[in-house]
Amino acid sequence: MSRVRLIVQYDGTSFAGWQVQPGARTVQGVLEEAVSRILGGERVRVSAAGRTDAGVHARGQVVSFSSLTERPIKAWVQGLNRMLPSDVAVLEAAKVTEEFDPRRWSHGKRYVYRIWNGPTRAPLFARYAWEIATPLDARLMAESARALVGEHDFSSFQAAGCAAKTTVRVVESLEVEGAGGGEIAIDVRASAFLRHMVRNIAGTLVEVGLGRREPESVREVLEAKDRRMAGRTAPGRGLTLEEVYYGSEPPRRRRMSAVVELDRSEES
Amino acid sequence: MSRVRLIVQYDGTSFAGWQVQPGARTVQGVLEEAVSRILGGERVRVSAAGRTDAGVHARGQVVSFSSLTERPIKAWVQGLNRMLPSDVAVLEAAKVTEEFDPRRWSHGKRYVYRIWNGPTRAPLFARYAWEIATPLDARLMAESARALVGEHDFSSFQAAGCAAKTTVRVVESLEVEGAGGGEIAIDVRASAFLRHMVRNIAGTLVEVGLGRREPESVREVLEAKDRRMAGRTAPGRGLTLEEVYYGSEPPRRRRMSAVVELDRSEES
Repeated sequence: MSRVRLIVQYDGTSFAGWQVQPGARTVQGVLEEAVSRILGGERVRVSAAGRTDAGVHARGQVVSFSSLTERPIKAWVQGLNRMLPSDVAVLEAAKVTEEFDPRRWSHGKRYVYRIWNGPTRAPLFARYAWEIATPLDARLMAESARALVGEHDFSSFQAAGCAAKTTVRVVESLEVEGAGGGEIAIDVRASAFLRHMVRNIAGTLVEVGLGRREPESVREVLEAKDRRMAGRTAPGRGLTLEEVYYGSEPPRRRRMSAVVELDRSEES
Repeated sequence: MSRVRLIVQYDGTSFAGWQVQPGARTVQGVLEEAVSRILGGERVRVSAAGRTDAGVHARGQVVSFSSLTERPIKAWVQGLNRMLPSDVAVLEAAKVTEEFDPRRWSHGKRYVYRIWNGPTRAPLFARYAWEIATPLDARLMAESARALVGEHDFSSFQAAGCAAKTTVRVVESLEVEGAGGGEIAIDVRASAFLRHMVRNIAGTLVEVGLGRREPESVREVLEAKDRRMAGRTAPGRGLTLEEVYYGSEPPRRRRMSAVVELDRSEES
């Protein structure tokens, strides 16, 4: 058995998300097909650190697969890139131990949610941003976001109908960058994410930026542990999985079987 | 008669260029249809400062049209933006004198040619850049580009088979920005451009950056006045029309009828 880890980048616009679905074009589907062709037909399962939703992009997604057939590491960068469509590319490949799991072994991830806040639409940025014409107060958004940093129960920001075993996550940093017209970026780094967590945070912070919600209410939403208290889920196209962090070994807490289950509810 | 000037932005990927062509989706065609709908069916002709080719983008293209029916200026920004597809938007509208011609009145334009020079493809940038995996020496490119600044006969950089009356143009600035991996931008400002001029300059400078052509040869190519001496035409997707400059009146030289003809050979 040979196990390979890839760093991949993709433009999520024309994908129905990461995960294989019958009749839909997905990043997992496209990658599995290309890997299988390089392996001369052997079928593989490719797993990812973050199962991104439809329209969500990735600059540094980490994926992994095992195969019976072995190929030199170069084949995985050059070979796959020759085969993959223009909206997916492999940036890096490495051989890893058989136990490596890109999701369970990750120590954290960084997502950036981008907003285009110019007075009109921006066709050259529209694929990668949520366009909001009304001026947002980015400073207020940044201030109110501070309440979310640290270890908290993020149930209020979890996708409705989602039942994760535990909804406690550690947000290591959350910055709102940019003020005035143009791009606003919400940059979030956390140990792990709940499903739709960044998009629900973005939707809530936008309401603060529009003056429709008090900055202090963000803390109240967090404390309420009630999805109905938070803002709408921001559109997928504004979200990019920027990076996945690893140590040399899987994070300790993930070794407990109960917590491993948790990963099923990670944001995508 | 009412004459309107618009600043428009578009992602050129899904367009067969600016100019109306039977059976093809063009920026001019999409704009003329939307303007006509706002005018209740009146047909108009929309003219542009730069007739961009297939795949070429525009951040600040300037266009203009005349109509018998008048509409408040707001209708042209909000109304058109509601109607236009997501890859075109109107950034600004203004009423102008009947004589205004976006191409003939322009005092200059700025184009940027973008290259992605990372070791692998970059799906999040691929629509807006020419991807070149071999490392380019951006400093050499910048040095050799200096020979092109000023008033010169740019025949060597004109599209093959193109017969402009005069091929003398004034390049006001030409900068190559970025070094090492990642984005390299060739930023050119000129009084006017010949067809494919920026893309042929980009193709030639890339050969310098790859070490396949001596930096001094750029001056020789210019002096040869022979299209066969220059490099290949760089792909359209890397090119963006950034800005069009105007004074309060049309440039003097353009008032002479002979020179007005010139504009037919402007880059697109």
